Amino acid sequence: MIDKKIVKEKIIMGIDPGTHVMGYGVIRITNNKPSLENMGIIELNKYEDHYIRLAKIYTRVIGLIEEYLPDELAIEAPFYGKNVQSMLKLGRAQGVAMAAAISRDVPIFEYAPLKIKMSITGNGRAAKEQVAFMLQKILKIPDANMLPQLDATDGVAAALCHFYQSQGVQTGGTKFKDWGDFVKHNQDKVRK
Amino acid sequence: MIDKKIVKEKIIMGIDPGTHVMGYGVIRITNNKPSLENMGIIELNKYEDHYIRLAKIYTRVIGLIEEYLPDELAIEAPFYGKNVQSMLKLGRAQGVAMAAAISRDVPIFEYAPLKIKMSITGNGRAAKEQVAFMLQKILKIPDANMLPQLDATDGVAAALCHFYQSQGVQTGGTKFKDWGDFVKHNQDKVRK
Repeated sequence: MIDKKIVKEKIIMGIDPGTHVMGYGVIRITNNKPSLENMGIIELNKYEDHYIRLAKIYTRVIGLIEEYLPDELAIEAPFYGKNVQSMLKLGRAQGVAMAAAISRDVPIFEYAPLKIKMSITGNGRAAKEQVAFMLQKILKIPDANMLPQLDATDGVAAALCHFYQSQGVQTGGTKFKDWGDFVKHNQDKVRK
Repeated sequence: MIDKKIVKEKIIMGIDPGTHVMGYGVIRITNNKPSLENMGIIELNKYEDHYIRLAKIYTRVIGLIEEYLPDELAIEAPFYGKNVQSMLKLGRAQGVAMAAAISRDVPIFEYAPLKIKMSITGNGRAAKEQVAFMLQKILKIPDANMLPQLDATDGVAAALCHFYQSQGVQTGGTKFKDWGDFVKHNQDKVRK
């Protein structure tokens, strides 16, 4: 008799499209268990021209989609900013990244930064380092891979946030309402 | 002997990517003489979903580029807006349209609304009707084609503005510095 197990897999790509740096993360969900496929940043600072930056975002996101074939794209999308100028630029960066997903029929889901931090750490105002720490624990990322990539964590965090949102926080077969609920039931895993 | 004349042709596509309506215009420049190829609007109001609107902009701009094979894309791009929310949305609409051009290697040129009105009418604060009137005169558009398409004029105006910017205002073999210069030398063409 052949032992047949149905493996449910899903790839989620998360991006944080900024105008200076774009962070991205790709996670694989295997039977509701997330693991890291890849993470990285695309440096845009080195290009002075605004269109070259946008073109870079577009071609790199297309490249990532074609490499990892994500089922869904999660975007970190701030809705507030310092001024109309910076929001216009941010909107363009987001729009270009979204167009890349649209052109490859990848559904887009966007999350506010506060929502992402809340779903990963339980604290919407968590520092970048706290988010990175939780991502390391959850996805078992070694320090050596994580430390040089702090800017890439926003992308990974967006992807993981989307996983939690679409599945509910789930660990060891128990489904929790939210991160607070998970923490309540896992006091032994909480750092004091 | 064969009479060989070198015909210089160029297609400029102009778009005004808004979040409610997107106007577009395609002009053909033949030996420095502009003529209208097509103009129209893409209604986005009827789609409630933000992503469907963005997807619509992307696929329609791709469609227009593949149909008219423009050499250059001119975009009407306001740099100021009421609030950060509307600027983010506008930035996304612009970004998606720009990504369509980037994906087809069409160079992008953007012009502020004031600059476009100035180059078409000589008045940066001109009303939509004044811009439409000048476009009709310059491109010889019949009333029947123009009147139902007032919203499309911003796209045509952006394309024509880009032509003027790249060539200088040129009529009947004489090159003028700007529209004011043209008007000064063409008092007989000015409506009193």
